[in-house]
Formats: sequence, structure tokens, C-alpha cells
Amino acid sequence: MDWQEILGFIGGALITLGLIPQVWRLYKLKSAREISLTFTWLFLLGAAFWLSYGVVLSLPSVILWNGVSLCLMCAMIYAKIKYGS
Amino acid sequence: MDWQEILGFIGGALITLGLIPQVWRLYKLKSAREISLTFTWLFLLGAAFWLSYGVVLSLPSVILWNGVSLCLMCAMIYAKIKYGS
Repeated sequence: MDWQEILGFIGGALITLGLIPQVWRLYKLKSAREISLTFTWLFLLGAAFWLSYGVVLSLPSVILWNGVSLCLMCAMIYAKIKYGS
Repeated sequence: MDWQEILGFIGGALITLGLIPQVWRLYKLKSAREISLTFTWLFLLGAAFWLSYGVVLSLPSVILWNGVSLCLMCAMIYAKIKYGS
């Protein structure tokens, strides 16, 4: 992996890993009122597009981070449905 | 732009535009308790890495969406500082 790819890899890692404390916080507080449902669905859909982009162009880090993001956004949507108002 | 690039372009657009209703919601509710500060900073940092990746490789859609994301995350961090607990 050359250094430019490392920039993209780190960028993807930071955004995806950042979703973990966010999802965790919603389940801990048992509250998701402030979360926009539009945000969660657009993010889910966006990650699905990026995942297909990664699959088509065989980009491992794009596949990895967007696959993980997809799972985390499913957990966030579930929290929103369960705890949001 | 070939069709693979369109996938990435749409993915970036969806995620970035999804941040708008999320930021809007925080300012409307005047509350950001549920937002994880770790999430906002990691997302900001991740978008900065993607932006530099886009600049280095001259990828217009990566530059565009991550530039916009950076601004939106600054607005989210400001909301968190102002309204979060």
C-alpha cells in the first residue's frame, strides 16, 4: 500500500470507528431522540453505494470500512426505532 | 465520469447530505446530549484525511464531499459544545 492509500485507509478507519462510540452512547442512554432518521438512512445508503464501488474496483479498505459502517448504521437505525421519538 | 465513479460520487453525496438533517436537528432541539464527542472528532479527523487523499490524487468528488463534511462536522462539534452535557 503506498502512502496515498494509507491516507484513505486512515480516513475510512477514523470515520467508521467513530461510529462505535456513537452507537454505544445511544444504547447506553437508551435514547435516540436527537438522532435524525434521515441521517441514518442516507448514511446506510451511502455506505452501500461505497461498498459496491469498492467491490467493483476491488478496493479492500473501501470494502472493509463500508461493510463495517453498514453493520453499525443498522445498529443505529435499530436504536432509533427502539428509543427515538 | 464512468459508472464506477458515479457509485462513489453518489455514496459520498448521500453520507455528506445526510449530515445536514442531523446537524439541523441538534440546533432545532437545542440539545446534543446523545451525540458522542468522540464520534464528532473522529469523523472530523477522518474527513480531513479523506480530503488530503482527494487533494493528493486529484479526485474532485472526494475533495467536494469531504470538504463539505468537514464544515458540517465543525457545526456539529459547536452544537455539542453549546448544547451537549
